[in-house]
Amino acid sequence: MDEKLILHEYAASGNCYKVRLTAAIVGKHLERREYDITKGETRTPQFLWEVNANGRIPVLQVDHRFIPESNAASYYIADGSSLIPTDGFDHADMLRWMFWEQYNHEPNIATLRFWKDWVGHANLTEAQKLAIPGKREAGEAALKLMEKHLEGRDWFVAGHMTLADVCLFAYTQFAHEAGFEMHLFPKIGNWLERVKGQPNYIPMSL
Amino acid sequence: MDEKLILHEYAASGNCYKVRLTAAIVGKHLERREYDITKGETRTPQFLWEVNANGRIPVLQVDHRFIPESNAASYYIADGSSLIPTDGFDHADMLRWMFWEQYNHEPNIATLRFWKDWVGHANLTEAQKLAIPGKREAGEAALKLMEKHLEGRDWFVAGHMTLADVCLFAYTQFAHEAGFEMHLFPKIGNWLERVKGQPNYIPMSL
Repeated sequence: MDEKLILHEYAASGNCYKVRLTAAIVGKHLERREYDITKGETRTPQFLWEVNANGRIPVLQVDHRFIPESNAASYYIADGSSLIPTDGFDHADMLRWMFWEQYNHEPNIATLRFWKDWVGHANLTEAQKLAIPGKREAGEAALKLMEKHLEGRDWFVAGHMTLADVCLFAYTQFAHEAGFEMHLFPKIGNWLERVKGQPNYIPMSL
Repeated sequence: MDEKLILHEYAASGNCYKVRLTAAIVGKHLERREYDITKGETRTPQFLWEVNANGRIPVLQVDHRFIPESNAASYYIADGSSLIPTDGFDHADMLRWMFWEQYNHEPNIATLRFWKDWVGHANLTEAQKLAIPGKREAGEAALKLMEKHLEGRDWFVAGHMTLADVCLFAYTQFAHEAGFEMHLFPKIGNWLERVKGQPNYIPMSL
């Protein structure tokens, strides 16, 4: 493939890390462009016009076209690799966990971590403060569902590592930083180590 | 395909309607099993054990296996049809709008409608009441993004109707019931009519 892949990102974001981890696992090179979301660098007129009218990162640039949404960008990079099952049921089952991640996992676990470690409790709005118990309960339910699903399974789907594992890994590895008691979820702990042991694995910090 | 498709659903849910509309468009038959979510029928031990440990509908049953998450279930049904682009970029672009729908659209527009018409304002928790302004702002931003994207386009992706249109259609058609002023979004209005004019289209009520 001759196309040039550029990741528009904020490196500390788990959603951006997903895309980098996917590229590392399948052996594709990404150029990286950093934006400081805390300074509004993804809300400038140029970013909104050229990169993503939604004002969010990550965005994957493929030559002169753009794919926002971390899980869609990761799918584009993984397409044709062993991370994407070819069987129709397994493929839909992989997407099921990826949609679930964006609906039930990220808005609770990643958001609580962001509020706690980046924003700081004192700086939260009243609406955000009142949302914390619901997000904590939903985050715990998400982790319980993952723990239960991993009973007797090494990977989420299809008996091997797929993009569902990559997308779920990104924020699950930091769930303890959001205050979740990860010792209660030993199967998740084993699965996190399994992901880290994969060839070409890269940690968040690289 | 000899497999039997059963939709476990609550027919009034837009997420369940997505799956029915997809099946209608591609000409596949769905058996339907109704659960009353307002009576907790998707939280029974049997449902959690057999159908979906996440306690949510819709779930697509394929013979004896289950696919939760509306967009993943719809993808399984549409797989191999013209609703799923074969070009890699267009395919990822379709997924981009489907992930965006679950992250930026449904939790704002569908949730506000549910709170207003099903739960009733007086029955909301304090946390929910305080969340309303943020959800309204985010819902308006989602509709503005759709309106802007439809400038000069008939469909969201690939120049023809794809699963992205089906998934976005489900709740956008009811956004006025959540209090959004849809006359401000004429291109969305035209696109809604375009979807309704497709062969095999079925409305929510069937």
